[in-house]
Amino acid sequence: MATSTTTESENKLQLVHRRVRAFPDFPKTGVLFRDICPILKDPAALTAVIDLFEEHVRKKHEQVDLIIGLDARGFLFGPLLAQRLGVGFVLIRKKGKLPGATVSVAYDLEYGKAEVEVQEDAVAEGQKVLLIDDLLATGGTMSAAVELVKKQQAQVLDCLVLVELKELNGRDKLKPHGVFSLLQY
Amino acid sequence: MATSTTTESENKLQLVHRRVRAFPDFPKTGVLFRDICPILKDPAALTAVIDLFEEHVRKKHEQVDLIIGLDARGFLFGPLLAQRLGVGFVLIRKKGKLPGATVSVAYDLEYGKAEVEVQEDAVAEGQKVLLIDDLLATGGTMSAAVELVKKQQAQVLDCLVLVELKELNGRDKLKPHGVFSLLQY
Repeated sequence: MATSTTTESENKLQLVHRRVRAFPDFPKTGVLFRDICPILKDPAALTAVIDLFEEHVRKKHEQVDLIIGLDARGFLFGPLLAQRLGVGFVLIRKKGKLPGATVSVAYDLEYGKAEVEVQEDAVAEGQKVLLIDDLLATGGTMSAAVELVKKQQAQVLDCLVLVELKELNGRDKLKPHGVFSLLQY
Repeated sequence: MATSTTTESENKLQLVHRRVRAFPDFPKTGVLFRDICPILKDPAALTAVIDLFEEHVRKKHEQVDLIIGLDARGFLFGPLLAQRLGVGFVLIRKKGKLPGATVSVAYDLEYGKAEVEVQEDAVAEGQKVLLIDDLLATGGTMSAAVELVKKQQAQVLDCLVLVELKELNGRDKLKPHGVFSLLQY
């Protein structure tokens, strides 16, 4: 029944929400850090996260070919979701970590620049992919990841994140690509 | 039947083995890099990895309280194994990435030093833990991880790795703690 499923999803979301801690002034003064470690420490909460992502994906997307996770905390959730959906997982890493031919995209940080890359043969033309990370803040890294996927002529279906920091407007930066977040602050 | 189970495990191991690629001179001249990315891209191979780890753990350890994964590629496999075993997953990260009170251990790299840390409240006294990473090379990072767990008065049951580079003798460095590796080179 739709009603009971909705309630079940709400309960899962509440469990996930209760497992996020806030640390003021980390990593620097004025920043309120949302710590997701307690979710990983509670097997029921981690299952709930993957259930909720899976529910969204199955409802919204008929076909998914790949899950692509961002270094490093996207690695915590991406393989779990990929296994649920029965698809492969691909790593986007900080520059210099992946062997073989790679494609890279540079992006601006608050101070300086960063670069992310993917193996050239990891994503094929026309594949439908979901990007996943733990957190969406300004959207800089996620935007670079979207560019990487586009460079490979593949299609970004959605960007999935556990936590979205709404005031930083990462969602706007990623348009026209959709963002699905479990928790918003 | 024991025979058929053994064959099944051998088949899984062969599948995993076929999905590892070698890249010469990466990240520097003279190093043969074992690339595990194709395992993650093949859902059956990734399932096989977790099956094999689970089989080992259930055979060898009566009780496991926590899986602790090393930054960043331990994050790819640790949460999957933790979910299979129904236990929590804890992150060991490079210094400066974890909020709140942390415990840290410094260790020597080829050039310079590195430091890993864990949240102080993540591991409790007396807990039985498994450490997991993708690769065991010289064992420097894994040794530091063992020290971290010991600092918390917890017990390391085993160090699990996908790939062991035998000539670098990481296994000796970790004694008396056991190493379980799926693939040896």
